[in-house]
Formats: sequence, C-alpha cells, structure tokens
Amino acid sequence: MTLVRADGAQLAIDCGLKLDSYLLYYGKSGKGFEDIPTEELMRIGAIPKLQTKGTIDAFLVSHGHLDHIGAINRFMDKYPAQVFGTQYACGLIRNRLNKTQLHKVSSIGYGQAIHVTPRLSAELVEVTHSIPQSSMVDIHTSEGDVVYACDFKFDDHSKIAKTNYKRLKAIGSQGVKCLIVESLNVGEDGKCDSEKVARAKIRDVMGFAHENDKLIMATTFSTHLERIQVLVSEAEKLGRKVIITGNSYLPNCAMGEQMGLLDLPKGTIVAGKKLDGVFSAIKKDNRGKYFVLATGHQGEPESVLSRIVDDQFKFHLEEGDCVMFSSRTIPTDVNIANKSEMVDKMKNLGVRVFDDVHVSGHANREEHRKLIRMLNPENIIPAHGNIGMIGNYFELAESEGYKANTDVHLMRNGDTIIL
Amino acid sequence: MTLVRADGAQLAIDCGLKLDSYLLYYGKSGKGFEDIPTEELMRIGAIPKLQTKGTIDAFLVSHGHLDHIGAINRFMDKYPAQVFGTQYACGLIRNRLNKTQLHKVSSIGYGQAIHVTPRLSAELVEVTHSIPQSSMVDIHTSEGDVVYACDFKFDDHSKIAKTNYKRLKAIGSQGVKCLIVESLNVGEDGKCDSEKVARAKIRDVMGFAHENDKLIMATTFSTHLERIQVLVSEAEKLGRKVIITGNSYLPNCAMGEQMGLLDLPKGTIVAGKKLDGVFSAIKKDNRGKYFVLATGHQGEPESVLSRIVDDQFKFHLEEGDCVMFSSRTIPTDVNIANKSEMVDKMKNLGVRVFDDVHVSGHANREEHRKLIRMLNPENIIPAHGNIGMIGNYFELAESEGYKANTDVHLMRNGDTIIL
Amino acid sequence: MTLVRADGAQLAIDCGLKLDSYLLYYGKSGKGFEDIPTEELMRIGAIPKLQTKGTIDAFLVSHGHLDHIGAINRFMDKYPAQVFGTQYACGLIRNRLNKTQLHKVSSIGYGQAIHVTPRLSAELVEVTHSIPQSSMVDIHTSEGDVVYACDFKFDDHSKIAKTNYKRLKAIGSQGVKCLIVESLNVGEDGKCDSEKVARAKIRDVMGFAHENDKLIMATTFSTHLERIQVLVSEAEKLGRKVIITGNSYLPNCAMGEQMGLLDLPKGTIVAGKKLDGVFSAIKKDNRGKYFVLATGHQGEPESVLSRIVDDQFKFHLEEGDCVMFSSRTIPTDVNIANKSEMVDKMKNLGVRVFDDVHVSGHANREEHRKLIRMLNPENIIPAHGNIGMIGNYFELAESEGYKANTDVHLMRNGDTIIL
Amino acid sequence: MTLVRADGAQLAIDCGLKLDSYLLYYGKSGKGFEDIPTEELMRIGAIPKLQTKGTIDAFLVSHGHLDHIGAINRFMDKYPAQVFGTQYACGLIRNRLNKTQLHKVSSIGYGQAIHVTPRLSAELVEVTHSIPQSSMVDIHTSEGDVVYACDFKFDDHSKIAKTNYKRLKAIGSQGVKCLIVESLNVGEDGKCDSEKVARAKIRDVMGFAHENDKLIMATTFSTHLERIQVLVSEAEKLGRKVIITGNSYLPNCAMGEQMGLLDLPKGTIVAGKKLDGVFSAIKKDNRGKYFVLATGHQGEPESVLSRIVDDQFKFHLEEGDCVMFSSRTIPTDVNIANKSEMVDKMKNLGVRVFDDVHVSGHANREEHRKLIRMLNPENIIPAHGNIGMIGNYFELAESEGYKANTDVHLMRNGDTIIL
Repeated sequence: MTLVRADGAQLAIDCGLKLDSYLLYYGKSGKGFEDIPTEELMRIGAIPKLQTKGTIDAFLVSHGHLDHIGAINRFMDKYPAQVFGTQYACGLIRNRLNKTQLHKVSSIGYGQAIHVTPRLSAELVEVTHSIPQSSMVDIHTSEGDVVYACDFKFDDHSKIAKTNYKRLKAIGSQGVKCLIVESLNVGEDGKCDSEKVARAKIRDVMGFAHENDKLIMATTFSTHLERIQVLVSEAEKLGRKVIITGNSYLPNCAMGEQMGLLDLPKGTIVAGKKLDGVFSAIKKDNRGKYFVLATGHQGEPESVLSRIVDDQFKFHLEEGDCVMFSSRTIPTDVNIANKSEMVDKMKNLGVRVFDDVHVSGHANREEHRKLIRMLNPENIIPAHGNIGMIGNYFELAESEGYKANTDVHLMRNGDTIIL
Repeated sequence: MTLVRADGAQLAIDCGLKLDSYLLYYGKSGKGFEDIPTEELMRIGAIPKLQTKGTIDAFLVSHGHLDHIGAINRFMDKYPAQVFGTQYACGLIRNRLNKTQLHKVSSIGYGQAIHVTPRLSAELVEVTHSIPQSSMVDIHTSEGDVVYACDFKFDDHSKIAKTNYKRLKAIGSQGVKCLIVESLNVGEDGKCDSEKVARAKIRDVMGFAHENDKLIMATTFSTHLERIQVLVSEAEKLGRKVIITGNSYLPNCAMGEQMGLLDLPKGTIVAGKKLDGVFSAIKKDNRGKYFVLATGHQGEPESVLSRIVDDQFKFHLEEGDCVMFSSRTIPTDVNIANKSEMVDKMKNLGVRVFDDVHVSGHANREEHRKLIRMLNPENIIPAHGNIGMIGNYFELAESEGYKANTDVHLMRNGDTIIL
Repeated sequence: MTLVRADGAQLAIDCGLKLDSYLLYYGKSGKGFEDIPTEELMRIGAIPKLQTKGTIDAFLVSHGHLDHIGAINRFMDKYPAQVFGTQYACGLIRNRLNKTQLHKVSSIGYGQAIHVTPRLSAELVEVTHSIPQSSMVDIHTSEGDVVYACDFKFDDHSKIAKTNYKRLKAIGSQGVKCLIVESLNVGEDGKCDSEKVARAKIRDVMGFAHENDKLIMATTFSTHLERIQVLVSEAEKLGRKVIITGNSYLPNCAMGEQMGLLDLPKGTIVAGKKLDGVFSAIKKDNRGKYFVLATGHQGEPESVLSRIVDDQFKFHLEEGDCVMFSSRTIPTDVNIANKSEMVDKMKNLGVRVFDDVHVSGHANREEHRKLIRMLNPENIIPAHGNIGMIGNYFELAESEGYKANTDVHLMRNGDTIIL
Repeated sequence: MTLVRADGAQLAIDCGLKLDSYLLYYGKSGKGFEDIPTEELMRIGAIPKLQTKGTIDAFLVSHGHLDHIGAINRFMDKYPAQVFGTQYACGLIRNRLNKTQLHKVSSIGYGQAIHVTPRLSAELVEVTHSIPQSSMVDIHTSEGDVVYACDFKFDDHSKIAKTNYKRLKAIGSQGVKCLIVESLNVGEDGKCDSEKVARAKIRDVMGFAHENDKLIMATTFSTHLERIQVLVSEAEKLGRKVIITGNSYLPNCAMGEQMGLLDLPKGTIVAGKKLDGVFSAIKKDNRGKYFVLATGHQGEPESVLSRIVDDQFKFHLEEGDCVMFSSRTIPTDVNIANKSEMVDKMKNLGVRVFDDVHVSGHANREEHRKLIRMLNPENIIPAHGNIGMIGNYFELAESEGYKANTDVHLMRNGDTIIL
C-alpha cells in the first residue's frame, strides 16, 4: 500500500496481501486468509502495518491481483473513504466484502475524473498486464502529478487491453512530480514477451498434444482471462469439450462473461464442487474429446490438480494424458517443492507434462526506460521488489540521468518521503 | 560420424567437426580450421579418428550444419564413395571442397532412392530442424531399416519445411532394425517451441525497438534461412533498408536465393568485406531507416559485431541503437565470456540489448517419444549428446518399454555394435 | 540391494529404503515407514522389488545408513539367511526388528571370514564414511573377488575410522572379478574434504558464536557419531552444558557410548520426549551456558527444530541465539522447501544461522581413481547414483582404460549381468 | 577511493584499480595497466574520476590489494599529500612508484597517530583479511570518528594477524560518527571460514596427492603470504623441494621474508624468468620430489600455468601430476572461461585437479553484525559491492535498528554526503 498526501487530502493506492508471509506461517494450517485476525496478519507481515495520522480520503486500486486488493476489506471500515477501481478490479474486491461494505466500492472508467476532495482528483490510465482492466493511477496535485505504475508491461499485441500511450505522454508533458513504479523484472534485458508469444506457444503445444487422442488438462492464473480465452478457444477449435474446474475460476469466469471479457465455448462446464460428477463423463475411450482447465499451477495442495494426483477423486490421470502449465512457478521454495511433487506424481502415471507455456506480465528494462521517457518524472520511487530489484531500477534510472537519493529514492516499508 | 555396415557394404552418415575441441586449442591462434592438418585435428578430438577396415561405399549427409559436414573433405579422397545429401546440404559441402572433389557430391531429393550397392539402398526423409532441407537418413538393409535421426524437431508451423510423418510411419510399419537418434534436449519436458514462437517474438521486439527511431541490428545463425527471412521481412515491413554483413552470410544468402529458400527485400545489401563503405550510409540522423544483420551471435572475436564494439570500423553503435540476438549462447565457457564481453561493451555505449529472441532446433522429450512410437525400432542408439543426455534418453526409452543394454544401447566414440 | 550369485550360493548385499519415494507419497500422511505394507512400498519404488529364483544364503551389510539397511526386515523372514555386518550396523538393524528376528543378525569384525557356504566366503574391510564402522564387502568366489564399495570416502584424518589400504591392495593383487561402486560425487574434481576440515569449521563457528553469550543449537545426522563427538566436545570446552534432543539421537547415543564410539560430556542430557521439561532449565539469563543438539537438519516437519520454530513447545528461540547446521541439505525440492521455511522463521526471530558447517561422506573423482588402481578390477559396475552420476563414473573408468559395455557396465534396477 | 573532509582537512582512503574494467577493454591488448594513460583509465571506469575542490592532505591505505592501492601513483604527484599505510602495504605501493615519488610514502605501525593536520589525526587498527598487515582506518574528527572497514574478516585462528577487538570496542565507546564498510559477502549467512579451515584442506589434499609420487603444483594469490607459508611448509614436511615461479610472487616473497612474514624452506627457488632452466631439474623419474607454486589461479593467459599447458615451455605436465588451486575463481565470465580452458587442457593431459582448496577473506553477515555492535556507529555507508550487495547490507543494518536514508546511506560512485 502506498499513501499519498497532497493538498490536504490523503489517498491510499492498493492495499494487498503478501502471500508468501501468509503461507510461511499458515500455509499448512488449513486456515484460510480470511480466518486470521488482522493484528496477526500484521504481525507476520502479510498485510500493511497501517500507521497514519488522520483519515484516508479514498482507496485507489490499480488492478485486481490479490497482492493489490487483498487487504482492503481489513481497513475500509475504519475510514469513510470510497474504493475506486475499474469494473473488473471492483468486482474482485466486492467478492471479498460483506454486505455492509459493498456500497463503498465504485467502479469507474479509464480517464474518468475521481474527485477525492474539491482540490484533488485522480484518474486511471489503461495499461497492459496479466489481468483485465489494469491501470496506472494518476493523481493530479497542485505540485504536479503522482503516477503509480505497479504492475504493467507494454504489450501491443494483447487482444483485451491497450496501453494508452497518448494519455501517458500527455501526463508526462504536463509535469510528473513523482513516479512510483514496480521493479520486478527491471534487471532483465529487453522487453517482456507479448501475449502473442503465449498464443503461439499454446497453439503449438495443444496441436501437438491433441494428436495423442488423450485428455488435455491445463492450468493458469484464474484472473488471467485473456489466457483462459486462448486456452478454451484453442480447445474448441480442436473439437474438444471444455470443462473448467476449481473454485477460483468460478467468480472470474462469471464476471468475465458478464463484462464481455471472456467468451466461453457453448456447452462449457464451470464447476467448483462435486467434481466427481463432472469428471464422470471422461472415460477411457473418449478422453481425446475433452479439455479440462483446473487449478494447481503452483502445485497448491488444495488445488484440483493436486487432489487428482493424490487420488482424492474417482477420476484419475492416465498414461498419455497431457498436462500443460500455462504459468510460471513463482520462485519460492514452497511453490517449487509443491509443484515438483505434483509433476513427479504425474510422470509416475505416464502423464506428458508441458511446463511454462507462458509469458510474464511484468515489464523488462527497456519497457521501464520507455515509461521514464514518456513521463519524464521529477522523482522516481522504485517499489514492489526486493532490495536487489530496486537496485536494478536504480541502475536504469542512473543510466537515464537520475541520481540516487536526489531524484531516485530508496524507500522501505513504512518510510515517508516529502517531495 | 556413424558407420553402418550391412549386406556387404559400408556407409558413412555425416562427418563433422567438433567445434569446441578446435576452439580450445586453436581458438586464439588465428589459424582457420582449414589450416590445421588432419592428424592434428584427430589428435585434439576435433574430427573423427576414422578406423575402418575396408572401403566406404557412400557418405550420406543428413543436413548442412558444420558438426555434420565439416570433416567430409578430410576423408573423401581416401575412398571412391560419392557424397549424397539434399541440395542445400550439398551446396554447403561444395563450398568446402577443392575443384577435384566437386564431382563426388550428388544432391538428391527426399524419397529418391540412393543405390549404394545393388543390394543396399537409402533415402532421405524430410524433417524440420534449424537449417533448410534437413533429413532423417533411412538405410534399407536386408535385416530391416536403420534410421538416423540427428538432428530434428517436430515443428508443424515451419514455413520452409514439413516433417514427412506419413513416410516415417510407413518406415516404422515395415520394420526398423535400429534408430540412431540425437539426445541434446531429451531431458527437457514437453516439446521444443515452434518457429512460429520465434516469429511472434521477433515481431514483438522489432515493433518495440522500431519506435526508438534508431538503428536496429540483429544476429542469428548464418544457415538458419527461415529465421533470416523473418528478420529481413519484418524490417522491410517497418520500412527499413536491410544490410547483411559478415562473411558467413554470403554463401548462405546466395544459395538461399538461388534455391528459392530466401527472398531478400529489394535493395538488400549483402557484404563480407569493405564494411566501412557499406556502413557509411548510416548516419546520426537516418539510423532509424536501417536494419543490419551481422555475424556475432556467440560473441566470436572475428565477427562483425565484435569488431564494431572493438572500434575496428569507422562505424560505431550509439546510445539508443538496438541489438537483437536471435540466437542462444551455446553454453561453453568461452562463448559465455565472449558474448558477455561484447554485451558489456554495447551497454556501456547505451545500446539496448534484446537477447534470446529465439527458439531451439532440437526435439524435447515428447517429440522423441513420438518418433519412437512412429518408428517402433527394434534397437535404439542415443547419440549426439554427452553421457548425461544419453542417460536422459535411456530414461525415456525405458518408459517406452526398452531395456538398457538389451535394446537401447550405450555407445561411445569408436564403439562398434553388431545387431 | 545387490544380489551376487556364485559357486552355487546367492548373497544379498545391503537392502535399503529409498527415502524420497517414501516421502513423495507418504511424507505428509503422518504414516511412519513401518506402517506401510511391503507391497505398497514396492509399488512406489521405496524398497527393492525382490525377484529372485531360489533362496538367499546371507545378507551382508556394508554400513548402517537407512538406504542400506531399511528394508532388510521386510525380506528376512522369507529366507533362512543370516544377516552379517559390523557391530554398529547390526545394532541399527536390530532396532528395526521384532524379537523373533533378532537371532538372525550376527555382528562380525573386519577381516573375519563369513562362511556363507562351504565353498563361498566373504569379509568386511574397514573404510571411512560418515557413520561408524563402515565397510567394503569383499566376496571371495572361485572366479575372483567381488568387491562392493558403497559408500565410502578416503579420509586419513578421521578419529574413529581408518581405511584398510593394505587389505584393499592385497585383495587387488589377488584378482578382483568385479567392483560394484557408488557414484554420487565421482563428477566432482579432487577429493572429498576430510572430517578434519569439519572439525576446523566447527571450532571456528562455535568459538565465534559462543561470544554472543546466547544459546547455541546445532543439528547433524543422528548416526554421524564422529561429528556429534566434535560438537559436544567443543561445547564442553566452552563450558556449556550439553542437551541432546530428538528421538533419532537416542539409540545412536546409547549404542555409541556402549561401543566406545562416543564419549558424551558428564551431565549430558539425552531426551526424546517430554522436552518442555528438559528445555525449562534454559532461561533468558543463562542461555549462554547451554548447547543443544537437536533433530531437524533437513527441516523435517516432525523434528525438534521445526517444532520449536512452530511454537509447539513452551521453549522458544530468541534474538541472538545461534543455530548451526552441521549438515548439507540433501537436494530434493521438499527438503529445500522445509529447510528454507524453518530458516526463514528462525531469522524472523533474530536467530543467527550458520549453515553447511559440514563435509561430505562420499568420495570424489580422485578417490574413486585411487580405489580402481588399488583393486585393479576386471569389471566395474557403477551404482548408487542417477544415470548422470553413473555416466560420470564411465568417464573416469574410460580415462583409466576401461571400455563401456566391455568391462564397465551400465546396470539398471532389476538388471542381471553374468561375468 | 573515499574522500573524507573534516576539520578543514581532506583525506583520501585507498585509491585502487577496478580490474574488470581494465580487462574488458585491454585484457587482450597485451598492454599492461601502466602503459595506459590516466584519462583513458578514467574513461573506461578503471580508476576513480577524481573530482575534488581543494587539496588532498593525506592518502591513508588500508591494505595492499591492487583494488586499494593500484591508482595512487596516478594522483599523488598532483598533491603534496603523504601516503600512509602498514609496512607491507607501503612496500607494495613503492613497487609501483618511480624514484621521485618514493619519499612520499610512510609506513606506520598499528595505533600510531598519523597527524594529518594539527586538528586532525588518524590511526590504523589491525584486522584479519587475506593479505598481511591489513587495517581498518580510523579518522579522529571533532564530530566523532570515521571508521573505514574495507576489507576484513574476523579470523581468530590466523597465524600472522590478529584483529584488535579491544581497540575497536574502545573506538566504539568513544563515539563513531560514520562507518564505511565493505559489503561483498554480507548476504551470506554465518561467518567466513577461518584460515584454519584452509590449512586443514591443504594438509588433506597435499597428503593425498603426495602418494601419487608425481609432481604437485599449486597456485594462489601472490600477496596471500599466510597461504603461501602453509603450502610451502606442507611441501617441506612431505620432503619435497619447493620452486616458486611467476613474476608476481617475486616481490611478495622478497618482502615477506625481509619483514618476517614468510619463512621459505631452505633451498627454495623463486624465479620469474628463464623458467625452462628452473624446470629442467624436474624429470620423469623424480617429479615426486618437487612442489611448484605458480601463477595462474584465475587462468590468466600470461601466467605460468597457462603457458605450461599451452606448450610454451620445454617443461610439460604429465599424467598423474596434481594441480591444486588454493583460490576461488573470481566470478567474471572472462575468468571462468580462462580457468575452464586451462583446466580442460590439464585434464586432457591426465592431470589431477584439486580446485577451491581455499577460504574467502571477506566477512559474512554475522561478522558484519559483530562489527556494528562493537563500533555502534551513528551512520553507516556500505561500500565495495554492487547494488545488490549494498542492499544486503541495508537488510542487516535494518535488523540492527538502522533506518535507510536516515542512518544507513546508499552512496554511488561520485556521491557526496554531509553528516
């Protein structure tokens, strides 16, 4: 979470959950995130230790990933603030709220003015990322704009999003006081692969796997609707019936269809529970007619894929079935272990595994450079990365003429800077 | 090199150069490969220690990579044998011969019978790889076929090649005595990315780089005509003039155009020498109008890219110019060091580097499995890999029902097996 | 397990548990290894699929590690065979047996003849490894000796063991038909670090940690008595009281003291259960007076260290306490994840972690070469390693003049070779 | 180089050469460092771009490594300043000076007051590192002390140095305004291995290698006299004659003997040139009687070891000879490539290679923590590391209660901070 104070108002941008802290202490507890008290989550570093004087006038949300929205419901009752975000982000937030909180969430369009106080306004600017309707948040203050750019990539071949370069350049030309920007992949040369590359990979792999005339299963991030669309469309083209399984896909598919972001093939089954019934249609002699999307891309023990390989369903994977991970293993030791256990068990069954049929959603160095050049910010605060990644951003900023501690700043959790 | 003896005849399949052995001892000597005596090359392990009783009745060539053809000229005078290969492979072989040797090279079409002796024939079967006109070599013996499958991938989206699955299945159904097969990437899950993925990557990167309005340079393998075609076509679409520089591109571009494998944009310059003159057209204010393909993908000290960054031309790279490596660093310590030196110098100049805009040309595990299932060979000899890679092939073969030492065999350089 | 048939008799050498197979399928089940039926263990590949015609005349045991003795009790009832091993190995075997099986275990001294049948005898030869009383097993057959060398290192500075080079050379000079040898670290240059190096590391770290005047905890392999001795002796020298906690240390410490292999400082507490009582002596103001050895070197969830950081005791680690891992993380993904979780939690408490204060127990390439030169075996069968490690052994053997498939053999689980 | 301005004076601490920048641009040029103009060295970033107003009143030198003293001669003529350091560091500096500069170098003892100006003094405090007579530099200013701690480790088992903990604590208790500290290995847990560990490793390896009755060669850093002493003493104990070869050993051995830091066995030969003559004593049948220390630990092309394997001497390595690297490959791609080429050629000759028989000279995290606790500095400036390493130091400092940008500061080359 980032707090911006300007012109007498105070705004919070994003407010998320640090998943690895939660998993370290509660991953094996069986306790859901929602079951753990706010104070305990603060203690283990899973949610921000909110220490602010005064009120919060608004929550601005850049996009709907859990590490950006997961803790809003913990803090919103304390303040009168409304929560603003795009339609899809707001949908994901609302799914985490109780009824009394719902009225405080307002979805807005790109470019639409958010009037926080009479003197202070903000807007969302469209960018590409790995979830629909992502934004950079632009706060217009009397001293210049504050632009929040976490997270993004510049993908000119996305089919459901389009970075508004024109608006970014216009903002840049009017004077940006400060850019707050993610730094995950700034240490990587070049640019992030386009979703076009993921499409090419998926078509290649699915065409190859289809010839086996066996079941094809896939897994990907449940909010990545553009990816899900490619997967199910490709399956449809191959004449396979589509089944989507696992709780986390349910709300996303429903919202996606409702908002016109996702077009599931006719007859697609989407199911969270009672999967034995759903799977019962898939038999020895017809498995080449099915495509199943399932949870489990990180090998999560409670996911559908894990439960399949652990024999918790009547349904089993068989020799020759194909499983495609349209995802990357988020590199924590626990994920690596969970995923490798799952994959080992699959291979022991004779399953063909296709891993990393995927592209990232985070900008590489040259995309970051492009953003700097468009916005020409007076100050930069690299964020959303460990200290090594922030260091990589410093090196980029220095190559663009910025100077450490003068106009590119090292900020740590809990720090305040006055510009 | 593989020697096959059957029905009273003896055939040699491929006969190449082990580049890393040559580089270890002569890489800094300034001596070209051709300047080193055959005995010395044998001593350092750069070419096969040919120890055969009797004559060689024919050389069969699978494809034109140096590690498959580089030593043929060292041995062909010793035997009456003709050399057979596809048109492109034969072109590359002829480039290494003296006039008296040329008449012994015969290019043949896929499926055309090669009559080695009255009792023994062979044919080439089309496969996809990373060079035009690659083949699997199929030798028809009285005890069943011997199929040589080094090197290949199964890419159904190549624009210049097409694996002849139908013929492979037919060969398999008639009885394959032995499959000799490469093992480089058999340890990798899934399948090798299609060239379609490389096309998507290149379009994405070149579109992005183009906006800089600065020079775009690229480098790739000089025999990889399909890749070169994508690069220059993309440059042409962006309205850039194409210049191709470096000796190794010359014969390949010439042959490629002549054989209809490559269609260079009108006005393309291809130059090996006198590059100062060629580069002189590229100036400070028009560099956004040019695309230059150059040698140097492995950071080779004598390549055009190396000589540019080492200030051996009047022409220099400038801040904002983009260099794209449409290649992978072949992982020897010397390549890694050469390439990183080159890239460091580029970055010190402010050049934007886009690395690994590339896909491999070698089959992964599931493609190998598919080949086994199509050919159903009685015996398998994994080849073209270090002992770890051959071990990986053993694990695949065992999962397909083969048994080590019984029908999947460990062969070392110089070994003989009687089947 | 290795079966040797010669002179009409059949001998089994070692018979162990493949721990990672067990952990993959039952690691989170709460089921101990002993609770799982033999057939199920065979199915998941955790114990050998014993397929032998005829009887087994004797079990010969090289040393007491679980992967060498863990499955003997599953098979011994089926055969009349006695089990032979050194005193320490037999002690560990007996701990896994029921009363009716105990009489079949006979501990013997090095060099003592084991008369299996009137025509066939064997002996154990002392070697250094990471457990007391390790052996190479030498079977004297009418066609020459079979030497089994799994596992060993050549450590001339061990304080509790001494390789009997003289006997090995004598055996070599009489004619070795076959050497069966481990291959874990044969790919590593040079030699394995001596235990002398571990002693130097431990003294250095413990002296440094002691100055903190806080608790020092350590963990190591429970059968590595030489290491345990160094740890507790060093603690005693520093004036710290020694407490040893965790079930697996109990039988080893008891046997070690009884057999004169371990000399615990006076007043040492060794405890498996009721640890809250044991830990209650350690308080805020006296923790600098204690040294605690505990289970948990692989981050095992049921270990004492795991349970401490998971708050399952009244006792807690505090800021400034030191934890030393006198061990290496055995590189499976699950171990890596378990250990990193444990260490993360320790660091969050302010604990100082000293990792890898350890040396390996497995021979490197030059020690393997030395063994070959001492024994001069007619045939070699590399074992106890994945196919990559066995490949590394092939390269060593080839450099010593052996030839693949002729006198150095690739054997897979279940294979038979007749020499 | 660090400039400290206080009480009207200006001091330079260390002034070295960035070796990798030099090697990137001139490594293959054949040009020695001394042959390149100062401006060119500044341009490529190999020496500091000295931009100071006013004069420099003194150069204080912490220790004699090239990256700490290599550029002093480039700047000393410009200022009236004297150069102060320990006897050994001054010896190394003098070796790089011309006659007219020699009088400006003053060697001083630990604790001896360096009176820079009437109001400002400094002293050197003994610490352990990997070169004799290393120091922390302590500058006494009217606002508190500035302590410069680059580079060090806390090794209580060194035989030629001893950290003066008492003095460090005394300095800490009087008030340290600022600590400037190296950060190379602060990201590593625990402590740096003691030289005692290196001694144990060397004894183990040399004892093992000696039994081969072949030549033993070794290589290490030429200024690491403590290490050289262990190597030659061990050789002497084994009854081997010692030969030391390579230019860089010459001045160090000479100074070491003269200053009582090194005691070479009687009859030791130390030679830089005419090595064919020196090597001629080593023959096929007496090589087990010799131990040769030679340059080449980083695979440097001009080193003695490189020239041996490249057949530039009449002397050659033979099958069974042992080469021990008592060093670590400094991880630049060029070193890695050079060293691997050298080692590959050795192995092709049948040489036994023992690598990394070595311990580091740089403090790990817990030693850094100890330093912070002894000095209790008001401000900390992590230095001598890339931005990732400095980031690691920030995390340590934060765990000790420091706050980024408040009392632990990110400084980049050329930056100034006023405390």
